[in-house]
Amino acid sequence: MAKKVLVIHGPNLNLLGEREVSIYGKVTLEDINAELQAKAKDLKLELTAVQSNHEGEIVDLIGKARKEFDGILINPAAYTHTSVAIADALLAANLPTVEVHLSNIHKREDFRKKTLTAPACVGQICGFGKESYLLGLIGLNYSLNNQK
Amino acid sequence: MAKKVLVIHGPNLNLLGEREVSIYGKVTLEDINAELQAKAKDLKLELTAVQSNHEGEIVDLIGKARKEFDGILINPAAYTHTSVAIADALLAANLPTVEVHLSNIHKREDFRKKTLTAPACVGQICGFGKESYLLGLIGLNYSLNNQK
Amino acid sequence: MAKKVLVIHGPNLNLLGEREVSIYGKVTLEDINAELQAKAKDLKLELTAVQSNHEGEIVDLIGKARKEFDGILINPAAYTHTSVAIADALLAANLPTVEVHLSNIHKREDFRKKTLTAPACVGQICGFGKESYLLGLIGLNYSLNNQK
Amino acid sequence: MAKKVLVIHGPNLNLLGEREVSIYGKVTLEDINAELQAKAKDLKLELTAVQSNHEGEIVDLIGKARKEFDGILINPAAYTHTSVAIADALLAANLPTVEVHLSNIHKREDFRKKTLTAPACVGQICGFGKESYLLGLIGLNYSLNNQK
Amino acid sequence: MAKKVLVIHGPNLNLLGEREVSIYGKVTLEDINAELQAKAKDLKLELTAVQSNHEGEIVDLIGKARKEFDGILINPAAYTHTSVAIADALLAANLPTVEVHLSNIHKREDFRKKTLTAPACVGQICGFGKESYLLGLIGLNYSLNNQK
Amino acid sequence: MAKKVLVIHGPNLNLLGEREVSIYGKVTLEDINAELQAKAKDLKLELTAVQSNHEGEIVDLIGKARKEFDGILINPAAYTHTSVAIADALLAANLPTVEVHLSNIHKREDFRKKTLTAPACVGQICGFGKESYLLGLIGLNYSLNNQK
Amino acid sequence: MAKKVLVIHGPNLNLLGEREVSIYGKVTLEDINAELQAKAKDLKLELTAVQSNHEGEIVDLIGKARKEFDGILINPAAYTHTSVAIADALLAANLPTVEVHLSNIHKREDFRKKTLTAPACVGQICGFGKESYLLGLIGLNYSLNNQK
Amino acid sequence: MAKKVLVIHGPNLNLLGEREVSIYGKVTLEDINAELQAKAKDLKLELTAVQSNHEGEIVDLIGKARKEFDGILINPAAYTHTSVAIADALLAANLPTVEVHLSNIHKREDFRKKTLTAPACVGQICGFGKESYLLGLIGLNYSLNNQK
Amino acid sequence: MAKKVLVIHGPNLNLLGEREVSIYGKVTLEDINAELQAKAKDLKLELTAVQSNHEGEIVDLIGKARKEFDGILINPAAYTHTSVAIADALLAANLPTVEVHLSNIHKREDFRKKTLTAPACVGQICGFGKESYLLGLIGLNYSLNNQK
Amino acid sequence: MAKKVLVIHGPNLNLLGEREVSIYGKVTLEDINAELQAKAKDLKLELTAVQSNHEGEIVDLIGKARKEFDGILINPAAYTHTSVAIADALLAANLPTVEVHLSNIHKREDFRKKTLTAPACVGQICGFGKESYLLGLIGLNYSLNNQK
Amino acid sequence: MAKKVLVIHGPNLNLLGEREVSIYGKVTLEDINAELQAKAKDLKLELTAVQSNHEGEIVDLIGKARKEFDGILINPAAYTHTSVAIADALLAANLPTVEVHLSNIHKREDFRKKTLTAPACVGQICGFGKESYLLGLIGLNYSLNNQK
Amino acid sequence: MAKKVLVIHGPNLNLLGEREVSIYGKVTLEDINAELQAKAKDLKLELTAVQSNHEGEIVDLIGKARKEFDGILINPAAYTHTSVAIADALLAANLPTVEVHLSNIHKREDFRKKTLTAPACVGQICGFGKESYLLGLIGLNYSLNNQK
Repeated sequence: MAKKVLVIHGPNLNLLGEREVSIYGKVTLEDINAELQAKAKDLKLELTAVQSNHEGEIVDLIGKARKEFDGILINPAAYTHTSVAIADALLAANLPTVEVHLSNIHKREDFRKKTLTAPACVGQICGFGKESYLLGLIGLNYSLNNQK
Repeated sequence: MAKKVLVIHGPNLNLLGEREVSIYGKVTLEDINAELQAKAKDLKLELTAVQSNHEGEIVDLIGKARKEFDGILINPAAYTHTSVAIADALLAANLPTVEVHLSNIHKREDFRKKTLTAPACVGQICGFGKESYLLGLIGLNYSLNNQK
Repeated sequence: MAKKVLVIHGPNLNLLGEREVSIYGKVTLEDINAELQAKAKDLKLELTAVQSNHEGEIVDLIGKARKEFDGILINPAAYTHTSVAIADALLAANLPTVEVHLSNIHKREDFRKKTLTAPACVGQICGFGKESYLLGLIGLNYSLNNQK
Repeated sequence: MAKKVLVIHGPNLNLLGEREVSIYGKVTLEDINAELQAKAKDLKLELTAVQSNHEGEIVDLIGKARKEFDGILINPAAYTHTSVAIADALLAANLPTVEVHLSNIHKREDFRKKTLTAPACVGQICGFGKESYLLGLIGLNYSLNNQK
Repeated sequence: MAKKVLVIHGPNLNLLGEREVSIYGKVTLEDINAELQAKAKDLKLELTAVQSNHEGEIVDLIGKARKEFDGILINPAAYTHTSVAIADALLAANLPTVEVHLSNIHKREDFRKKTLTAPACVGQICGFGKESYLLGLIGLNYSLNNQK
Repeated sequence: MAKKVLVIHGPNLNLLGEREVSIYGKVTLEDINAELQAKAKDLKLELTAVQSNHEGEIVDLIGKARKEFDGILINPAAYTHTSVAIADALLAANLPTVEVHLSNIHKREDFRKKTLTAPACVGQICGFGKESYLLGLIGLNYSLNNQK
Repeated sequence: MAKKVLVIHGPNLNLLGEREVSIYGKVTLEDINAELQAKAKDLKLELTAVQSNHEGEIVDLIGKARKEFDGILINPAAYTHTSVAIADALLAANLPTVEVHLSNIHKREDFRKKTLTAPACVGQICGFGKESYLLGLIGLNYSLNNQK
Repeated sequence: MAKKVLVIHGPNLNLLGEREVSIYGKVTLEDINAELQAKAKDLKLELTAVQSNHEGEIVDLIGKARKEFDGILINPAAYTHTSVAIADALLAANLPTVEVHLSNIHKREDFRKKTLTAPACVGQICGFGKESYLLGLIGLNYSLNNQK
Repeated sequence: MAKKVLVIHGPNLNLLGEREVSIYGKVTLEDINAELQAKAKDLKLELTAVQSNHEGEIVDLIGKARKEFDGILINPAAYTHTSVAIADALLAANLPTVEVHLSNIHKREDFRKKTLTAPACVGQICGFGKESYLLGLIGLNYSLNNQK
Repeated sequence: MAKKVLVIHGPNLNLLGEREVSIYGKVTLEDINAELQAKAKDLKLELTAVQSNHEGEIVDLIGKARKEFDGILINPAAYTHTSVAIADALLAANLPTVEVHLSNIHKREDFRKKTLTAPACVGQICGFGKESYLLGLIGLNYSLNNQK
Repeated sequence: MAKKVLVIHGPNLNLLGEREVSIYGKVTLEDINAELQAKAKDLKLELTAVQSNHEGEIVDLIGKARKEFDGILINPAAYTHTSVAIADALLAANLPTVEVHLSNIHKREDFRKKTLTAPACVGQICGFGKESYLLGLIGLNYSLNNQK
Repeated sequence: MAKKVLVIHGPNLNLLGEREVSIYGKVTLEDINAELQAKAKDLKLELTAVQSNHEGEIVDLIGKARKEFDGILINPAAYTHTSVAIADALLAANLPTVEVHLSNIHKREDFRKKTLTAPACVGQICGFGKESYLLGLIGLNYSLNNQK
């Protein structure tokens, strides 16, 4: 049976394509979701994507995902750097999770280099624009197939 | 007339008993609330318990509690370490408040040793598992009876 | 045509006038909004004011404001010091924004001196009580009239 | 057979009731010990209380307690913040230990927020005045009854 | 009788309009003083403006202002970040004082975010170019009219 | 014509499969290179892999790669955290470069969270074991096809 | 009636005159006590001098001094930099206390510049060799005569 | 022949007696100078007192003092914490110098605990109000009589 | 004539063999002293061993050792990281001293990596269990035979 | 026509040759100015040298230099480490400027390693004694001849 | 069969006896190696000694030692403080390793107190000059004989 | 006889003229060496120039230079900020050494402001592009002629 993956897009990603184009490019969230669905099909994964600007909502989503999904692909965006609650939710959910970022966080402001959420994940991918998501999905698929 | 106490369980506590059992044990939030109700009865307190993963919702709850409750028992969980908003809400509400934690936060990661919310409380109790809540309720009861 | 300004009051400001009177004074949020409306009228601005205790809601509001407003006047309150998400939302919205604070944040606890949101604004005004808002509106009006 | 508890009062607590009344209140150490004895009786515990201003003496006491007591209730006072030796003694003794403080250490000077001794304890209780001790004894009793 | 305001322009502001035009714009100090005089007239204030590159001279001016002026509007420029002496002078003078900055100091180098002088002021305004001064004068006027 | 990719394995990676198996797994460097060659073939890339324990040698390799390769896939291992020279070499070479790590560096010692080399790369991938390399090669391929 | 002063010499001061002569000079503790007695006589003070290497003993001495002495002259030596317990004892005793040091602590290792005990004193005198004690006694005498 | 002492009063000390009376008391600089002259007479010293708010002027004064005075008594006030130039001037002058402060700098804001100038002095005296100066003069006199 | 060596065992070492066996092993202090006596005999040294949990007692012992012993072998245990007084005592005693630790302090908590006492010693040996003491004695013997 | 160079000697340099000879040597400021004039003649430069102990005066000088000189050679001495005002003046003047130091600031106290002024200069030269000035003048000459 | 020990001398140790004689003494590396061979003979060890100034070469040596030696005695010299690669190599080799230093690193510059390599070793010995090596060899021999 | 100077160019300088032209300019290493040879001829120096990307090789070169050269001119490039080994080599060689940098390191990233190697040199010159080398050679020549 197809494994189920939950994709969580964090705060302000709904504005992708309009916002700070020099950093984030012109691709929209719809474009990314479409490419993810196509790739999921290739990988025989069932994929659901949600976006939220609310830390608490993301915590809710992860809490519920424990029983309904097999893995999580998350771009926590700004909450990467400030949310212990999301990190705790990921630890509690205990699902294989991959963290992705559009931009190379190591090239930006110092406060963007600190990630509270990555230690609760399998791995982290950053800097490839929308391809960060696709690489993340492939990486998550590896993890789902190699779980003990 | 019975004094009214609001119990606030912060983010991810809805998963108690399933989540990270080695740290938090197998007791569920329902168990804790039941024990709290029993103890409240002993202490002649009227107790209402809520759980929320949303920082803003917790701020809302505290803001409303000002007129409807006599004291607060709170486990801010992850928000202990990151929420100035909840700390400000407690200062604004100006009700006797007791902060509790299931685990001994001084034995864990460094970022869990910093508490933004405890300075807005009467006191803090940590490390006794579910008994932290019961001790907290007894402590809050003392404070309610010794208010100036 | 009148320019449109969105006023955002952050967490706990709904309690103004009741809360910590020695720091914030007795003026209520309604009083402030009324004075802002009067001043907006003078300045030929159309003003909408909202209050929220939710970081995510404020991010939502700013995201939507991009298409519906010409400028933002914001008192992020506690989120000033902790929210990368609101700062990112302001950068994404890319509207002239002015940050205001009732109290002089430089006279208070050290953690209140750090502002994550001000770098995403035109400028910051603090310390004048409710007049901070009025000065902020005048300042925002200057910015709206001098945009390139 | 009744479990034996050693209560250790750290430096300057002999002056309680006379000293800095605005912070520590008017209760004396004798009052606290009397209340502790009463509560111990309720809990069927055998309680011995000592006070010492000497770090080395407290280390001696803990070292000997290993064979003579079942648990420790300690207010390390100033040594909370400076004594690796007492923390090491508690680790060596390996008895259930509860740390208590009269005042809420999170509301005071920064150096009082750091505790070297709490990581060697079951839990910590602070801010309830003399009731911190009583809550601590109840908490210790829980631990003694739930030891593996 | 008209209240008297002393305007103090700190180091290098004499070069305004010629210097680092990309940060500070083309307006000159004379332009700013003219606009301030006009606004003072509106507000029924008597305004005297001085510029000095000397920390000690600014301390002298503030010391003398105690008896001759009712309020101070100051742009301490570089001394904002390094002068305990000016901060002490403002505390000693004990006059309502408003600190202004042409640029948004929160958008610039880290060392410009620290202000030693603002804690000795009613409030601070930054980021509005020459309008920072005008807003500052309005803010100072509010303070002069609301003194206890 | 096939694009040429240089794969650089940093210090101690020659011991892979024998060394600290609990962290790095049983796969050997030969296994990884074989999988990389297979994947390169799929992607129509020409791939050369080298391993060196010498910082200076890696600097030499990168310097020469400027004229002979189109992109670099590098696991700088320990030098990630200490080598300004390799970071400078990457900046000087100015080729699309992807940094990969077998383990999730955010889960390990603090000094492993700091990366001097990633700011000189397109992006970074960590935590997927040997798959980090394969994901890195796919990511590098994207970059090679999207260069301006 | 003559006021009573307790002089406390901290750790290693018993070795004065033999120890590290280049820093502390050749004067012995007996010499200092003799000069202090002579000066006390001039000032009509009754002076008792003790030396101890034990932090706890010094805490005991200060605790007892509360009822038996009018003021304290203390050279806490090494404990200046490490003892919260002595600082707390001085706060508890609430007697006019003067802290003295033989050497200029600001000229020595960084850790000797931090004083935990001075904030609990009237003032501090350092750098004058044995004269630090005599100046300290004169200063203490002023304080005793100007108490409110 | 009488030794000559230069007394330097730093910034804002001209306002003594009027300024922040709760910290600095009601004594004026004239009072202090008069008491210093009286004490100088006792000690057979010739004393000249100057006050300046200018760092550069104080550097000038110290530079000239090298040839005209035998010792310096200085209260650098705010410049204590910020002036490398005055510290360098004292090192260059190489005269016995005593630093004094009216208030106990260890009881005040953190930035007042750092002294750049004291390492260039014989010793430092703080916390005795105007008596700090008199003690300082006695201490300086000792140094003048014990110079090698 | 045989040189005399004082061996000082610091706090909690009396519990060796019972305490935290996974870190410190099963050897007792008596075993160590017996091995030290045997090795001392080989080296023609006269050896006296003491244990104390009291910082002040250790300071006393070192102070007296100056005249009665030729060298010191010390395991300051917890006081390694907190005692300026013991470090000062060693400097004052000015005897060849060797510091030893059972465990490798560089593998443990960060606060155990800082040693206040080692700079006052000839050298330091850590990590060899009870053999640290024997190596320390051999090292001390070298120093005693090579003194200038 | 000959280019004009302003040489600014900062605080305490008037004492050169007399002051701290072990660090700064016996050469006087007059000697340095004479050598600079000779070298300027070689380089066909017109050179004016001034010395000031006043930060504000140096700011004034730089502000005026903008119109009267082609380049600046400055030894800011103590102000190197503390003056944002001089750094800002140099940025405002926007003339080629070379910073020189007699001693190697990297070999001295930590606070002398931080330079606030060098980022506003073409380059910095330190450690060559009076030759630092001559090298600085040659370097400045290069810059004057290679300006765009 | 004799156990095999590899001795690695780090950077600049080839210059021993000529270099900084006041710190390191006059003994040469040849002398040390000769004494080590003699001691190895006593201990029935087979000893090979190499010196290298190259971090990468030392990593190579350690990597190869895994199969050819039973233990390592290393003085990483400057690389102690900067090389994660050597620390990783030691962890990978997983042989009993002892770190030695000629001088007492705790008496020197702060940056020499940090050791990256010691946590990968059995223990560390410093401060005994060439005897550090001999003590290290004895300590390594103990470890080889007590391996589990 | 002509004095001999060794010029050492550190990592990545072989790429000069091709690499990051906006920072380092278009001049090549060959151009610099040619200009250095010409200037050496003027100064009657015999000059040998080498470039290496290897820290260990540079340490080797300096170690050998002790006997074969009279002075060193070094641009340690990236190793300036990370190599204790090169700093130690320079201290061991004990030859007059001048450190040069093409760019003004004080204008760049924070980690480039820290120099480990400069404290082992006579002086440092930075910011003059290729002229930094020529100025460095002149400065080194001064030092060679003024050695004691």
